[in-house]
Amino acid sequence: MPFQYNEFYNEQTGLTIGIRRQLFHEKTPYQTVEVFETDTWGNLMTIDGMVMLSEKDEFVYHEMMAHVPMLTHPDPKQVLIIGGGDGGTAREVMKHPGVNHVDMVEIDEAVVRASKLFMPGVGDFDNPKLNVVYENGLEFVKHPVKKYDVIIIDGSDPVGPAVDLFKKEFYEHCHRCLKDDGVLVSQTESPFVESYHDSIRSVQRAISGLFPVSKLYLTYIPLYPTGMWSMSLAGKGRSPLAEDVLNEIDHRTTSFASSLKYYNKEVHAGAFALPGFVRRILE
Amino acid sequence: MPFQYNEFYNEQTGLTIGIRRQLFHEKTPYQTVEVFETDTWGNLMTIDGMVMLSEKDEFVYHEMMAHVPMLTHPDPKQVLIIGGGDGGTAREVMKHPGVNHVDMVEIDEAVVRASKLFMPGVGDFDNPKLNVVYENGLEFVKHPVKKYDVIIIDGSDPVGPAVDLFKKEFYEHCHRCLKDDGVLVSQTESPFVESYHDSIRSVQRAISGLFPVSKLYLTYIPLYPTGMWSMSLAGKGRSPLAEDVLNEIDHRTTSFASSLKYYNKEVHAGAFALPGFVRRILE
Repeated sequence: MPFQYNEFYNEQTGLTIGIRRQLFHEKTPYQTVEVFETDTWGNLMTIDGMVMLSEKDEFVYHEMMAHVPMLTHPDPKQVLIIGGGDGGTAREVMKHPGVNHVDMVEIDEAVVRASKLFMPGVGDFDNPKLNVVYENGLEFVKHPVKKYDVIIIDGSDPVGPAVDLFKKEFYEHCHRCLKDDGVLVSQTESPFVESYHDSIRSVQRAISGLFPVSKLYLTYIPLYPTGMWSMSLAGKGRSPLAEDVLNEIDHRTTSFASSLKYYNKEVHAGAFALPGFVRRILE
Repeated sequence: MPFQYNEFYNEQTGLTIGIRRQLFHEKTPYQTVEVFETDTWGNLMTIDGMVMLSEKDEFVYHEMMAHVPMLTHPDPKQVLIIGGGDGGTAREVMKHPGVNHVDMVEIDEAVVRASKLFMPGVGDFDNPKLNVVYENGLEFVKHPVKKYDVIIIDGSDPVGPAVDLFKKEFYEHCHRCLKDDGVLVSQTESPFVESYHDSIRSVQRAISGLFPVSKLYLTYIPLYPTGMWSMSLAGKGRSPLAEDVLNEIDHRTTSFASSLKYYNKEVHAGAFALPGFVRRILE
């Protein structure tokens, strides 16, 4: 292990990953984007020193960010992704045969460039259904040109350029950008890290004030702090746990089920089971 | 952060925890037992350099090891714990009002001593229902003096003294020690770590050959490698997902529900939802 990558998610606890070499380093107008080659996790992307994804573990995050809202919606055709510049969330969304168009609004073109260069298996950037826009996510939803069936907010942690994605104003604009059956998902950090509780509560309060359906769900991300990550789902139509939703999952994922490494019907339902300490964060 | 504790769960990936000072260090005939004081996680116990528990996160592991099998059994009175020297699993088991007696068979008295001294809130060692035996777990189940309703195998990783707890012979003896409705649970490492897959498969094959019910379930443990941990459940009677089991959970946990920080009915059911890549380990 010639080098070590260290991320401390609080002053006292951190993740250490052995790296072979640095493949990409760019200080952009927004943040510092880096890619490292590792023995264990494939290539690893960090933003401002925080792990975003590795080639080996990205399937969990991207499947859980994409398929939970996509299956909650009865028939999503138009999808908006805010952030997600590595391309993994868009790749999973476009597996659904009914999808016509995906707008991916990424503030920092360096993230897309680094992913294309050093994580070529993550994105599906040549797919003609994908339209990449380099713009601030908040500005985009303030002046949308159309309405969407699903919005996925795949931003980084609530420091730097992603801080707006945890504010009430942003969700008000998203609500207006969603059609009648619209579903929205946002990543909302780890419930095990006390300093993240305000971010979770802030998003949950914003969406529960705007949408008839608002829920938190959890997934395992091995390279994110504590390994437990939360995602916040809001919807104008049916609940992600509605019998119809669960009954449709096998059928609607048939054409790409063999490509899934994480998501399935049981995982969809089980992800909404919240431990007591997580429920109490939301009270 | 004057010192750092580092655990590498493979050669390349590790956990780093800032420590204030070492409180306990003993090289016993079996292993090296240490306790550290930390800022973030309270006191932290390691065995042979691997995190066993911290005061802050132990509730997850102990609630999930104890209550899933206890609720799967219709009326557990006699419980055997193999390992578990910190006392946390026994503490959770003894919350069930119907329990008459718990035999805890810990090979290394230093673990119990360190826990009593430096993690006084973890164990409930003064409870008259608890009988602590310092003996090898395999030897104990070879010559049991009685039969049990529930057996919980709360050993450390499959290196050192716990290696027997992952072998078929051990489960054959456990099967004989269990009464007709008996339920057994064993911790079986992280599915995200490839070098652990053999341990998971080995235990799952052993129990599925012996018991009519055998299942894997998952829980989040923030200080264990990757944050995802598996537990293997085997039973002679009802499935942990039987309608009767789920319907009884709220009622049977009423007297201690306010003490639970993790376990509840939804978490019990949701823990058995296995991602595709975990299912494939078991194929």
